[in-house]
Amino acid sequence: MNAATPLFGRVALIGVGLIGSSLARVIRRDRLARHIAVAARTQRTLDAATRLKFADSTSLDPAVAARGADLVMICTPMSAYAEIARAIAPALKAGAIVSDVGSVKAPVARDVGRALPDGVHLVPGHPIAGTEHSGPEAGSAELFEGRWCILTPAAKTDKGAVEKVTELWRRAGSTIAVMDALHHDRVLAITSHLPHLIAYTIVDTAAQLEKDVQSEVIKFSASGFRDFTRIAASDPVMWRDIFLSNREAVLEILQRFNEDLTALQRAIRQGDGKMLEETFRRTRAIRKGVIAAKQA
Amino acid sequence: MNAATPLFGRVALIGVGLIGSSLARVIRRDRLARHIAVAARTQRTLDAATRLKFADSTSLDPAVAARGADLVMICTPMSAYAEIARAIAPALKAGAIVSDVGSVKAPVARDVGRALPDGVHLVPGHPIAGTEHSGPEAGSAELFEGRWCILTPAAKTDKGAVEKVTELWRRAGSTIAVMDALHHDRVLAITSHLPHLIAYTIVDTAAQLEKDVQSEVIKFSASGFRDFTRIAASDPVMWRDIFLSNREAVLEILQRFNEDLTALQRAIRQGDGKMLEETFRRTRAIRKGVIAAKQA
Repeated sequence: MNAATPLFGRVALIGVGLIGSSLARVIRRDRLARHIAVAARTQRTLDAATRLKFADSTSLDPAVAARGADLVMICTPMSAYAEIARAIAPALKAGAIVSDVGSVKAPVARDVGRALPDGVHLVPGHPIAGTEHSGPEAGSAELFEGRWCILTPAAKTDKGAVEKVTELWRRAGSTIAVMDALHHDRVLAITSHLPHLIAYTIVDTAAQLEKDVQSEVIKFSASGFRDFTRIAASDPVMWRDIFLSNREAVLEILQRFNEDLTALQRAIRQGDGKMLEETFRRTRAIRKGVIAAKQA
Repeated sequence: MNAATPLFGRVALIGVGLIGSSLARVIRRDRLARHIAVAARTQRTLDAATRLKFADSTSLDPAVAARGADLVMICTPMSAYAEIARAIAPALKAGAIVSDVGSVKAPVARDVGRALPDGVHLVPGHPIAGTEHSGPEAGSAELFEGRWCILTPAAKTDKGAVEKVTELWRRAGSTIAVMDALHHDRVLAITSHLPHLIAYTIVDTAAQLEKDVQSEVIKFSASGFRDFTRIAASDPVMWRDIFLSNREAVLEILQRFNEDLTALQRAIRQGDGKMLEETFRRTRAIRKGVIAAKQA
């Protein structure tokens, strides 16, 4: 593709929190679109988008942003998807691509796909990137660099549409993987959703302690707890939606986790040092795999 | 104290893994002792201590290192404490200080204190510092900078001895807190021991997955799991001993954690988004506390 030719004419970003605003910054930096239309739920967010100079036009109505767009990227919590899809459907032009950045992929075909008219291409996506910070000010054009972006288009989806979304994320610095939506949700239940649930739980357990102990827990948090507080500071609404959207996969892996935790609990109670040491040696091997995969 | 006068004449380090070797480097750098005697279980570790130039003398026998020492610092896994205490007791000179760096403090008075002769001062300590790496090569003189070191001497312990150990850790760059050993163990069960147990569990759950899913879990670990693998790469023997030594406090906080996790599990199963969101908002407040306490 000629560097002077933008990848898209008009891109509509529905929602510009951490991920949406970061993608907007990438599109702006690399001139990947002639026009960036931003829709958000509050005027305050739209004002931020204008102030941060990544929006060419703004609207509280997603249909206004989506009208005439070559790419509509939904970057809101997942509970808003169905309503947004219904709202934008009449405004979409033939050949438009609709994509998203949600952390659970199987529900997208149901919540968004069903509402879309024929001739519109759905390419669900999930950039595996983020921080514990939220909102348009927290975004950065470098957020996706060196990270994975997983796309989960249906088998019959237009190849050209998939290629355009792939190119967008490639320009953002990501490596792209394409997989089945249900498989994605099962893998992410382990790598992301369960760790977040556990971190939220342990930090909430601490939040319910007597105040004097709690202040010491914060004071001496550097011994492990600190890492959990960072994870447990992630956006509450986004994570509520993730757990509700990926309920089955999360509950399944949670059951395995509970069984494993019960076994370790029993080993501690019974003073079974051999079992504890063996388990702790096994887990080191996984860490070595993470380092070898350059994900550490 | 005159900068030219070392804090100690002879210091004996029993064990020179990550913590012991880091402390040795501090003592060497700041000339806090005239002589550093190192004892370790294997010749290989002693050779490393010699090669890394932080040992003035080495021995496989802790009693040889401890003989004539002004400070004996035990830096081994906690399961070795009782045997080491029995071994060094006859070699200790009157007025010697015995300290340690273990992560559980109540058992030290029992395992070490009982074996010591009258006139020897026991000042148990716990530097809240570490990495997931182990061994003498992993140490660094900067490891303790800006970190807490908790001391748990008995009320009747000689104030001069406590002051000398305090000064040692101050020179290492740490801030010192003095507290009751049982209280320490309860706080650390929450901030450190439970997070490690959880991280070990979740990584082990992943270690038991089918190989194809496991390789994808490693590939996409950046989404939360990665942080757990780092924690779960900590020294297996050290952590075995921590769980066995702090069994009661760990089991008590684990029970609270299990109750909280069960409540979240039920909320996911029942689709109770309100409960999930409220919990996730509560945990953000704890993160703000951690940041305000400059522990982030």
